[in-house]
Amino acid sequence: MMETVNVKNIGLRGVTVADTKVSFIDGKEGVLVYRGYRIEDLARNATFPEVAYLLLHEILPDTKQLSYFNERLQKASEIPAYLYETLKHYPVDANPMDVLQAGVPLLAMADPELSDDTREANVRKAVRLIARLPVLVAAWHRIRQGLEPLPADNSLSHAANFLWQLHGVKPSEKMAHILDTCLVLHADHTFNASTFSCRQVVSSRAHIYAGVTAGIGALSGSLHGGANALVMKMLLSLKEEKDIAGWVKKQLESGERIMGMGHAVYKTMDPRAKFLKEMALSLGKETGQEKLVDLSMQIEQAALAEFEKRGKTEIKPNVDFYSASVYHLLGIPSDLMTPIFAISRIAGWTAHIIEEKTGEAQVKPALY
Amino acid sequence: MMETVNVKNIGLRGVTVADTKVSFIDGKEGVLVYRGYRIEDLARNATFPEVAYLLLHEILPDTKQLSYFNERLQKASEIPAYLYETLKHYPVDANPMDVLQAGVPLLAMADPELSDDTREANVRKAVRLIARLPVLVAAWHRIRQGLEPLPADNSLSHAANFLWQLHGVKPSEKMAHILDTCLVLHADHTFNASTFSCRQVVSSRAHIYAGVTAGIGALSGSLHGGANALVMKMLLSLKEEKDIAGWVKKQLESGERIMGMGHAVYKTMDPRAKFLKEMALSLGKETGQEKLVDLSMQIEQAALAEFEKRGKTEIKPNVDFYSASVYHLLGIPSDLMTPIFAISRIAGWTAHIIEEKTGEAQVKPALY
Repeated sequence: MMETVNVKNIGLRGVTVADTKVSFIDGKEGVLVYRGYRIEDLARNATFPEVAYLLLHEILPDTKQLSYFNERLQKASEIPAYLYETLKHYPVDANPMDVLQAGVPLLAMADPELSDDTREANVRKAVRLIARLPVLVAAWHRIRQGLEPLPADNSLSHAANFLWQLHGVKPSEKMAHILDTCLVLHADHTFNASTFSCRQVVSSRAHIYAGVTAGIGALSGSLHGGANALVMKMLLSLKEEKDIAGWVKKQLESGERIMGMGHAVYKTMDPRAKFLKEMALSLGKETGQEKLVDLSMQIEQAALAEFEKRGKTEIKPNVDFYSASVYHLLGIPSDLMTPIFAISRIAGWTAHIIEEKTGEAQVKPALY
Repeated sequence: MMETVNVKNIGLRGVTVADTKVSFIDGKEGVLVYRGYRIEDLARNATFPEVAYLLLHEILPDTKQLSYFNERLQKASEIPAYLYETLKHYPVDANPMDVLQAGVPLLAMADPELSDDTREANVRKAVRLIARLPVLVAAWHRIRQGLEPLPADNSLSHAANFLWQLHGVKPSEKMAHILDTCLVLHADHTFNASTFSCRQVVSSRAHIYAGVTAGIGALSGSLHGGANALVMKMLLSLKEEKDIAGWVKKQLESGERIMGMGHAVYKTMDPRAKFLKEMALSLGKETGQEKLVDLSMQIEQAALAEFEKRGKTEIKPNVDFYSASVYHLLGIPSDLMTPIFAISRIAGWTAHIIEEKTGEAQVKPALY
């Protein structure tokens, strides 16, 4: 039966397309919850593999389960040899998000369970995807520089191993911990644009890789995951700027946005942003690059003051505002910032795809 | 502002997410219109390049415009050398829809206008995509058989050249004409699942290739473009079946579907299906393979009779029911049937993406 629906504006904002048990947001209160756990608790106490387990299995793992899950992630991380071969043929200036979008269907070709659409098989495919996306991103970064990809180091954590495969240098414990926390913070966010693309694609019974490939496409847009790279561009362009407050004012007066400020859902501080700000401050000190973090804080203060003058007190720094600085201080080039968003969000995407495929979304009439 | 919307069922069926000027469907009357032209008129009088021009430029081309457009398609059809090289590394049993989904971001890497998001640049990118997808599908089919891809023959039409590059044999005029008509019939269908994915992905300002890649993912599902391959599987499995009526009855009694029957929107004969049936009949005669078409007609008759008994007179053959036979009689393997859907629908996808990006959808409160 068709439903008659009164939507004043086109687009889907505010339309309940389905409900989900994967995560929950209260935008007014600044609350983000994965499977019943507040993001603050997870960011302080859980690692990314724990959070990925939570998103996929609906409960937090015990020590034994977590150790087995970490082992599965490590074992699954090797990408097929033909994929390395194909990467060597790409134009060296290819956008890493295009490389990633091409890479996921290429991974599909090697999956022995591709046509098995059971929940169990899809969880195994999800583990492979979570394990392999970072390896693919790191391999591309090596290959485009004319370097050989590096083998995984199984003595390292998921996040530390990514930094090792990317840079060929083992990261400090602190740096690895900070990246791990970033991955925790970005892992899910209910029906955001990329997650919705993933779910929408598999609703025609397409396989999990086809859904994830669509999610990567949506994430690449500048209104979504692409925003962190634009924040970085803004920071780099303002390195020599003396009058930040003046620049912010001029920007707003000419109708331009301040990248990384404001959010479609949060009408208060994004609960992820405060962790990212703390980490940026701490990393700035560690790396002796306090100037970049100072610049971010100057922009934030000037912007908040200008927004207040304009009665727009709900516009606050979002998840991209400080993540750009954190990634930069971890030595990550700007064009890999959105791919790093993807290697975290893959946990949420796959959890949502499995929910969509099994019809386990919580169907309730509540509207928000 | 959030809107409160009363949807009884989750999912988007019947929800007006946007409106479009690209095409129009009246499901009750069995009417499909591209840019104001009924599909029957286009199928009888227009070629696929004319229809692609119509979808992209909103008007039918005159002779000069069409000749220039055909020339542009031919000139744009060469795919980059690195793409051939990568294809040679894929597993030979890779699903062609995965090859196609990987292929589109690989094409993005070669587009000199990738970051130009103006309407004009996107129309040029659309022309490249329309020109290149068939070349990619044909190249993969050659390579997986251990054969070299064939260069385009510019003396041939778009459809004829595809059959040439696929089979290495120039098709008869009749066969080329039939494939061309199939491409016309599949070129657009308003907000179907794959088109919606395309539009949804680019709504975050992702590029046109990212959107198309998502569309290919959605199309691959068995509830969407993947259905034609399943019709073919059904036909091949019933080749030796003596009691078609009995098989149909048993199928429905055990709650199974008859592949290719019924449609989410059409409550009468799908206006495309009657053309496909005529073409299947004609090709059956031409190729001496009337048996396959007879089998389809037996299934159709038995199914219609069974549905009538059950009061479900609105269930009729859809676009996939006879297209499977037509493609089979054109010598196209089952696993290339969905990719052929894609090399037609790419015209509609790109027209919709451009509409989404330019905000030119017709915003009206009408609900249907």
